Amino acid sequence: MPAERQWSDPMNDEPACSIERSLQILGERWSFLVLREIFAGKHKFAEIQSALGIASNLLSARLKLLVESGVLRTKTYQEPGSRPRQSYHLTEAGRDLRVVLSALQQWGDLHRPRPSGPSALRRTRSGSPVHVGFVDDDGHEVPPADVVIVTDAVART
Amino acid sequence: MPAERQWSDPMNDEPACSIERSLQILGERWSFLVLREIFAGKHKFAEIQSALGIASNLLSARLKLLVESGVLRTKTYQEPGSRPRQSYHLTEAGRDLRVVLSALQQWGDLHRPRPSGPSALRRTRSGSPVHVGFVDDDGHEVPPADVVIVTDAVART
Repeated sequence: MPAERQWSDPMNDEPACSIERSLQILGERWSFLVLREIFAGKHKFAEIQSALGIASNLLSARLKLLVESGVLRTKTYQEPGSRPRQSYHLTEAGRDLRVVLSALQQWGDLHRPRPSGPSALRRTRSGSPVHVGFVDDDGHEVPPADVVIVTDAVART
Repeated sequence: MPAERQWSDPMNDEPACSIERSLQILGERWSFLVLREIFAGKHKFAEIQSALGIASNLLSARLKLLVESGVLRTKTYQEPGSRPRQSYHLTEAGRDLRVVLSALQQWGDLHRPRPSGPSALRRTRSGSPVHVGFVDDDGHEVPPADVVIVTDAVART
């Protein structure tokens, strides 16, 4: 895989691996952190920039890629006395990244623990704990050791 | 967050967010792709390099970080007529990344589909389909809309 490969036509079969196709959009730490902020309710450029301490040009480029690839959409808003600006919101594809971010969070809690203790995933209404796992078509958890990742890398072997 | 922040002492509370702590190790596309190859059974430097077309110095740096951070461990092997070499294997922390890679794969299958059709997650023995989702403590699936990601970003809001 050439290092310079960029996000490309979704109807192009290269790269064939879905992990790699996802990482064409998400394969950079800032993308995940920008999405974290938007999941946390920050939608304005200045809010996201201030939360992350990221350079404007870098944040613009990340947001542009996330919009072009259908993960975010923009809305126009205007504050009194200011010019119209764009805010950034999750599309359905963006909302579906919740489980990806949660899986990263869960792994970090377990394997990169903080002295101040783990964060948590909880049910909205009851507050009871939730985790990310493998589930069969009947909605029952399946042990990770009983799951095969059928990527093309595996299929080619 | 300063862009130059590197993987740091696990007993340091900064960054406080588990997503960000994970991305200190995994926040680069090559790390995920290297792990994909190792999950697929490739353990030797030359095999991984050949599968990914990654530059040697870049692959060395990625493997070093993954070993130092406890995701991979090395074994020494020796082929007839060659010097001893290292092979790379998942630790328990590395195996726990199966669900993270699977979540990325699932998202890519849905939102970055290939003309040739999706890849799949399956149960090892029965071959029945599996997906990544949220699960409660009783092993029952929970709808994503009913889950709060309690990151520090949220807690600070």
